[in-house]
Amino acid sequence: MTTVTRQLSDAQFSRIVSHGGVVHLAGQPAKDRSAPVKAQTAEVLRSIDTLLVQAGSNKSRLLTAIIYLADMRQKAQMDEAWLEWVDPENPPVRACVETRLGNPGSAVMVRVIAAL
Amino acid sequence: MTTVTRQLSDAQFSRIVSHGGVVHLAGQPAKDRSAPVKAQTAEVLRSIDTLLVQAGSNKSRLLTAIIYLADMRQKAQMDEAWLEWVDPENPPVRACVETRLGNPGSAVMVRVIAAL
Amino acid sequence: MTTVTRQLSDAQFSRIVSHGGVVHLAGQPAKDRSAPVKAQTAEVLRSIDTLLVQAGSNKSRLLTAIIYLADMRQKAQMDEAWLEWVDPENPPVRACVETRLGNPGSAVMVRVIAAL
Repeated sequence: MTTVTRQLSDAQFSRIVSHGGVVHLAGQPAKDRSAPVKAQTAEVLRSIDTLLVQAGSNKSRLLTAIIYLADMRQKAQMDEAWLEWVDPENPPVRACVETRLGNPGSAVMVRVIAAL
Repeated sequence: MTTVTRQLSDAQFSRIVSHGGVVHLAGQPAKDRSAPVKAQTAEVLRSIDTLLVQAGSNKSRLLTAIIYLADMRQKAQMDEAWLEWVDPENPPVRACVETRLGNPGSAVMVRVIAAL
Repeated sequence: MTTVTRQLSDAQFSRIVSHGGVVHLAGQPAKDRSAPVKAQTAEVLRSIDTLLVQAGSNKSRLLTAIIYLADMRQKAQMDEAWLEWVDPENPPVRACVETRLGNPGSAVMVRVIAAL
């Protein structure tokens, strides 16, 4: 049976799950929900950096990113933070959709998988 | 060429697809749409148990879960059913977003992948 | 370190990322946003065919498909195009949810992964 590695887990979910050369991160919402969308996105992406390193990966190894925006009219602001962050030599596939998010006030949540 | 195994397929989609040590399940909606959210969630999670076993996996092997809620205000009720179900030693990464679902009246749909 | 192959990349994202025997495609929106939903879906699915072949895969190797519809009341029209396209012997797992999409007027976006 292949090994599944879980990190930063509580009884409800893990923040990092690694298996078969791929690391999955939980959806990362912004904590500072009073900040504008670009700042919330930058905060989320910094969290992803931290989690990827903890898993033994990094943003140059990203495979996919799904971006959930609370208001699609704010996509341009999200994209500014994205472009300042993403490795331009190694960008993942991406999709961006508008959904209401679990934490009221959260403007953005990002879910990624990366190669180990 | 690597092997792809499909189970419970019709002409439109499969309910189980396994490949490379990972099993993907189709989005599982509740069938009893008159039930409250917690009961709908519990029904969905029982379906997932059944499908995972049929694929040769089980909930202790979950990698990721995406929860689509028709009304985010019902997240606490969904979470009650989730906490009663998830293996607290082996929780997957998770994301929860609000979207309208294909079956009118469905309050919740869950999509998971698991290690074989 | 396992190899990640990126194709059709710009500084923001890749349209194709392959790793570990699996190819991930970016969310494919329709370009002709004046067309009805069935035609938009057919266009999206043709794009996916092209990208899968470029990655060294094809629709008979699909693992998962997530369909984002701007208006769930148009699901039946999307399904018509889907049924005309999908390999009935090799259908992927599937989920369909309603979300607002990044391109105003886009009725549908599809995100798939496939085995190489």
